[in-house]
Formats: sequence, structure tokens, C-alpha cells
Amino acid sequence: MPFDERIEQALYAALGPLGQKDAPPRLSAAIPYAVFPGGARIRPTILLAVASACGDDRPEVSTAAAVALEFIHCASLVHDDLPAFDNADLRRGKPSLHRAFSEPLAVLAGDSLIVMAFEVLSSAGRAAPDRALALTGCLARHTGAPHGICAGQAWESEPRIDLAAYHRAKTAALFVAATQMGALAAGQEAEPWHDLGARIGEAFQVADDLKDALLTPDQTGKPSGQDAAHLRPSAVQTMGVEGAMAYMKDILGGAIASIPSCPGEAMLAKLVQAYAHKITMVPVAANRDVA
Amino acid sequence: MPFDERIEQALYAALGPLGQKDAPPRLSAAIPYAVFPGGARIRPTILLAVASACGDDRPEVSTAAAVALEFIHCASLVHDDLPAFDNADLRRGKPSLHRAFSEPLAVLAGDSLIVMAFEVLSSAGRAAPDRALALTGCLARHTGAPHGICAGQAWESEPRIDLAAYHRAKTAALFVAATQMGALAAGQEAEPWHDLGARIGEAFQVADDLKDALLTPDQTGKPSGQDAAHLRPSAVQTMGVEGAMAYMKDILGGAIASIPSCPGEAMLAKLVQAYAHKITMVPVAANRDVA
Repeated sequence: MPFDERIEQALYAALGPLGQKDAPPRLSAAIPYAVFPGGARIRPTILLAVASACGDDRPEVSTAAAVALEFIHCASLVHDDLPAFDNADLRRGKPSLHRAFSEPLAVLAGDSLIVMAFEVLSSAGRAAPDRALALTGCLARHTGAPHGICAGQAWESEPRIDLAAYHRAKTAALFVAATQMGALAAGQEAEPWHDLGARIGEAFQVADDLKDALLTPDQTGKPSGQDAAHLRPSAVQTMGVEGAMAYMKDILGGAIASIPSCPGEAMLAKLVQAYAHKITMVPVAANRDVA
Repeated sequence: MPFDERIEQALYAALGPLGQKDAPPRLSAAIPYAVFPGGARIRPTILLAVASACGDDRPEVSTAAAVALEFIHCASLVHDDLPAFDNADLRRGKPSLHRAFSEPLAVLAGDSLIVMAFEVLSSAGRAAPDRALALTGCLARHTGAPHGICAGQAWESEPRIDLAAYHRAKTAALFVAATQMGALAAGQEAEPWHDLGARIGEAFQVADDLKDALLTPDQTGKPSGQDAAHLRPSAVQTMGVEGAMAYMKDILGGAIASIPSCPGEAMLAKLVQAYAHKITMVPVAANRDVA
């Protein structure tokens, strides 16, 4: 089964318990609203690609890991859109969750998705408890504090920002989780997969900065110019559009070079190249329109 | 070591990583602010008491479970105090977290505590992965949706409320987690411990309704009259003060009767009686003052 189909099916299945009759109906509607329709599902796809490159001998565990990671990502989008943060009206081309439901339900849907991520790992892990526990630890480290995406978002509340720590935590953390969890789900060590995730994450951040600077809300499905509006540090501000594009290509070259030796090394390099093309294409095209 | 000392030491140790130099300092201050000084630590105390009654052969696992449960409880207080929910200025006798820090940091401190709860279970579980995974599943089920405290809070956003489901999820869930996690941490089955947790939770909810109706903010360290102000269903509204007190005593009697056969059964019954005395005493005294 192709990765994208496997991810959508598993996400859908993991939300099944929300349909139980003694569940609060609006929360049970808000949580799937945060998950479907998805964006590119880039993090779970990377996770499954790494698991596959490592043999993927327990696909039920890697699939659960992919779901858990995507739930955390969706939770972070819902909470980041809240009035206290970006106050975003749009997300993935539709009203943000707090706009469509309410602010309390947005907080609770995000909280629930964080919890469900760990629940999914625990359920799938019965047959491989050691792997499930390692996955839980890895996901938690890259989600919470002091080094996960919660910490990344929290840097924006600091009077003085540690830029390297901010980018590592805010964006790279979930990409490192993606590559490391892919390896762990297939029974391999996490550490050799750190650099690939970190570099993809860095490239993704630069691509996102470029999109935020160059694209319209119609093209991205969310508000533009948020970095400038919120005075957030951005690669475009630091090195200009051309500089940021060159930098992104360098990082992706380094990402491919960092792939550890494994049975699926060549397949994985191709996949990263395809993603590199995809994430660079949009801002490059937009820049041509602007120029 | 007495339970309370063991809990405080372990909570403190689990927050240690926040002191790392590349952590965002304000979030690293906000998270301990949510945890210390604590309330009665009643949920982790019940957890350790049940683990102890079941032999507590892996105290590092039961201690981690107690920390995880208290982190979830603290996270729920921080998020429930947010302007979108209770908009509370006070908690445990000091400014609520969003008042002391900011709303973004309150959202993120709550999120981080949820994540850290599962991280603590994963770290402590290496020596007993099966127990750690069962604990993860149990904590997640009682925290998230459709039946955990997130769902409980979400019932307050419903146009029609299922009162039984609301109380089960909003308050009883974490008490059921306390008794069941105590058993699981000691290698026992969770199911026989459900009723004890559910009944303690129910009694606690009634006691809380009584406190909310009868005590002043000086006595509770948080705003009074919140149930009436937010039109929340409360035992006091339904059956009056005297009726609610009689009801609470009945429930606690049932709780003690429900304790499963185990080596520490008598010890546990005493502990529940002591707590019963503690949680009934305050509203009883206040009612005398009012009367």
C-alpha cells in the first residue's frame, strides 16, 4: 500500500473511538476537523520511508508511529492558531479550529490529540513493548520541553531569543522525530538518523519562510506575512529571497549525504530529492512571478 | 519514605531537564510554577497507596506513574484556568499561570506537562516495558477523548450535557487512573480497581461542589461560586447542601467496601477513611459557619 493511503487509513482508524455514544459530540467532531483534510503529511511519510529503508519488519508499529507523529503535528497547528498565538482565521484552506468550533474546543482538541498520540503508540506496542517505549520517549522528547516543539513555540515568548535553539525546537524537532521514529519502529538505533531529520527540518523551515514571504493566502490556505507581522526571525529577513533559496538547496544536498547505510538508502535518497523538488518548487515559481 | 515526600522529590527530579542551558527560560520557569507548591497531591497519593497495597515490587515504576498522573492534573488546572474556560485569576493561593506569565506560556506549559507525563513513564519503564506501556495506555485513556478529562471539560461546550458521562470524565477519570495505575505499576490487573477510583472521584466532585458553594477564595486559594457563575451542573444545586453531604458519605462508604482483596486492604481502607475525613471536614465546618 502506498505511504499516503496507509497514513490516511490509519489516521482515520485511530479516530474511531471518538464515535462512541457517550463521547461529547462537538469535541468528537473538532478532533477529526483538525486532522482531515491533511496537508502534505510530510512527517509521517518521512517516518514510513525511513522505516521502510530499515526493513519495516513490524508495519503495525511504524504505522502507529506515523499516526502519533501526525497527531502531534496537527495538535501543534491547532494550538499555534489560537488567538493567544497567531490568531489565524485560516488553516489548510478552511476556518481554523477555534473559528469553526470555539476557543475552548480548540484547546481541548489539541490536548486530546497530544494524548491520543501516546495512546496509539501504547496500543500498537503490545507486540513490541521495547520499541513502543523507545518511540514514546523519542516522540515526547521532540514534542515537549526543553527541546521539543512546545519549547520552540515558547522561544517566541522570550525577551531574548536563542536562534539556533529556536529553529532546532520549533521546526526541526518533529523532522528529527520522523527519521528517528522510523528507525526505532523498525528495530534500529535512532541516533544515526538524527542529522537527516535535522537537515530536512532546516530546509523545510527555510521553504516555509519563503512561502510566508512570497505566497498569497489563496496559495497556502493560511494567512501570509505572519513572520514579519509577528516579528519572527526568518531566513528571508536574514539573507534575502535568493540567499534563502541557495541556502535551502545546500541543506538538502547535505541531507541526502547524511543518510546512513541501510538496505533502502538509494530509495530514501530519491524520496528526499522528490520532496526537495516539491518544497523548493512553490517558492521558486512565486519568486519568478514576483520578479 | 512517606508518600508525600516521595511524590515531591520525584516531581522535582522529573523537572530537572528544564534547567538545561538551551531551554527557553520563561517556559522552564512556568512549568514548575504549575507544579509547585502543590495542592493535596491526592491522586498520586492514592496511586502510591494502591501500589503499596499490591506489594509495590517496582517502586521506581509506581513513583514515575505518580509523577505522570500529577503532571496531567497540573496541566488540566493550567488549561482550565485559561480565559477561554474559567478565566481564573487565582490557583492554589497565587496568580494563575496565565496571569503570572502569559496566555501563550500557559497553553505551552500545559501542553509540555502532558507530554512530560508520558516521557516520565517511558523513562522509568525500561526495566519493566510491559508495565510502562500498560500505564501509558491507562493514563491516556483517562486523560484524552472520548472518556478522559479532556472529554469531561468538553462537555461544558455542549448544548446538551450527558450528566453521567460529564462527571465520569471530568473528575472521576483521574481517580480511576490513580487506582488502576497503582495496581498496574505493581504488576496487577487494572480492572478490579475501577470502582474504588470511580467512587473516590465521585465523592471528591461532591466535596468540590460543596467547597465551591460554601467557601471563600481565602479558604480555597481560588475563586468561589464558579459552578453557579458558569451554570455548571453541581450536586449542591441538585440536592442542596445537606443532601450533598449525606450523598458524599454514602459514596465513601461504598468506596471502602469496593476495595479488592489484596495484602494491603486494611491499610488502604484506613487511608480512604482519612481522606474521607479530610475532604468532608472543610465543607462541614463551613456549613456550620453559614448555618
